[in-house]
Amino acid sequence: MVRTVVVVGIPGVGKTTVLNIAVNELLSKGYVVKVINFGDYMLQELTQRGLVRSRDEIRLLPLKIQREVQEMVAKRIRYEIDSECKLRSESIFFIDTHAVVKTSTGYWSGLPRHVIEHLMPDIVVVIEASVDEILNRQIRDKSRERSDYGDPKLLSDLLIMNRMFAISSATLVGVPVYILYNREGSVREAALELVDVVINRLRV
Amino acid sequence: MVRTVVVVGIPGVGKTTVLNIAVNELLSKGYVVKVINFGDYMLQELTQRGLVRSRDEIRLLPLKIQREVQEMVAKRIRYEIDSECKLRSESIFFIDTHAVVKTSTGYWSGLPRHVIEHLMPDIVVVIEASVDEILNRQIRDKSRERSDYGDPKLLSDLLIMNRMFAISSATLVGVPVYILYNREGSVREAALELVDVVINRLRV
Amino acid sequence: MVRTVVVVGIPGVGKTTVLNIAVNELLSKGYVVKVINFGDYMLQELTQRGLVRSRDEIRLLPLKIQREVQEMVAKRIRYEIDSECKLRSESIFFIDTHAVVKTSTGYWSGLPRHVIEHLMPDIVVVIEASVDEILNRQIRDKSRERSDYGDPKLLSDLLIMNRMFAISSATLVGVPVYILYNREGSVREAALELVDVVINRLRV
Repeated sequence: MVRTVVVVGIPGVGKTTVLNIAVNELLSKGYVVKVINFGDYMLQELTQRGLVRSRDEIRLLPLKIQREVQEMVAKRIRYEIDSECKLRSESIFFIDTHAVVKTSTGYWSGLPRHVIEHLMPDIVVVIEASVDEILNRQIRDKSRERSDYGDPKLLSDLLIMNRMFAISSATLVGVPVYILYNREGSVREAALELVDVVINRLRV
Repeated sequence: MVRTVVVVGIPGVGKTTVLNIAVNELLSKGYVVKVINFGDYMLQELTQRGLVRSRDEIRLLPLKIQREVQEMVAKRIRYEIDSECKLRSESIFFIDTHAVVKTSTGYWSGLPRHVIEHLMPDIVVVIEASVDEILNRQIRDKSRERSDYGDPKLLSDLLIMNRMFAISSATLVGVPVYILYNREGSVREAALELVDVVINRLRV
Repeated sequence: MVRTVVVVGIPGVGKTTVLNIAVNELLSKGYVVKVINFGDYMLQELTQRGLVRSRDEIRLLPLKIQREVQEMVAKRIRYEIDSECKLRSESIFFIDTHAVVKTSTGYWSGLPRHVIEHLMPDIVVVIEASVDEILNRQIRDKSRERSDYGDPKLLSDLLIMNRMFAISSATLVGVPVYILYNREGSVREAALELVDVVINRLRV
């Protein structure tokens, strides 16, 4: 069985760490696992077309182009997964992306209709953490620029908006939304919960 | 006129009681009323196909099958209602279902796009109650297993998620979402409010 | 470039004032600006068809008719904007409407699928204010009948519902949702922020 797992979460919830531990755990159990970073695919597609040279230039593109490329990337990911399906019977695809992205023109859906309908995941996993935990992680992790997510009120708002966007997207295709709580100091437990959901609970 | 009323609510809000009183009230006024339980139709469809023998087995089915049968049931319900339309001029159909269901793989929409677009209800009624009222009802009503809904924080979250799911579904077809508050000790008032909405306020 | 900006907000957030100031600012900068009031277009369409004689009669129409006319108006607005596109290179269309409307049959989406897919705006701007600010405005502005929005709990609920509806609509077409906070006494700042978003940040 091939499982397609969309993983989302606002900056600072520990998405990358949870995902890395879960992937290693699955590999150690003998599963074929692939992590697809939606943003990387976007950048690659846009670079190949000569539309941008760096990630920062993406936001300067006309919205219409961004939407078109977003849809094309979703189709390409689905095609890659379907191709893999024919080769291997047991593999797990994690699509690392966002339910919502905060930009200078407002909150953007990372899984609008023209994306989620092509991706057709089996589940959308929303990684969450408390506002305090997110702020603590940001203090420790100075390497990444996330200064615009430092306000507690904004973070609290964003966590709710994130759920709203994830739910709107999931309703379009009828897939479950799994809220995975990544408690401070228990990231391994969160990763193992994700593994359990993907290999034991999810029937595809 | 035939009115199609989807009624949803999380476990413990008193949906069944409100619905029963409303139905009796409408029958006593001479209306033709039918309550369609979406879950019962799902079970019947799956049993006839030999896919399950009991309700508990439904959750073990692959998601894809569940979605397909969900859509088929929605179509069948719409067909039944349309057939009834030709026979009787005045009848009311209540579709008893869920906006969201909590499962081991997360929150599922009970009214995803492939369901609500076929059901095409005239209104989605969301029955709500306070967290305290829901907990009190659960203590009294030990006959039904709802232990997983006993946590106040989870219930409070679920009430909000329920609205989000109902709103996402309603936006797809442009139908109103009526929030019906079932106050402790005033279940008859809630039922009469539902009757008033359905026969006096709703123009179809 | 032609920009299509949907502006929504619950009664009392100061939508009309913000919009008026923003329009004047844009006109003074030499932009061609047009404000399209969705409700006015609805009334006009329904009056021409002889279905209503006044705004109050709209709510008495069957829901199916309301939905049909809603969709037709959305198509007409898109057609008008596209026609304008061919004539002028630089113009801004504001569509003044609602993400959600509270009626006697519940919360209605002002941007359901059959509307937003035709409007295809570049952005949905949600004007917000705090509950206290909304209540203060209502006390001062007695000319407009908004007595049903006077309850703080209901207003607080409505602000959240408004976001949920806006997000559900935006997810259907993949457009950004900009939350514009109209602080008491700073309406000009809010209007200038809207102008900045529309002419400087939005790439179409």
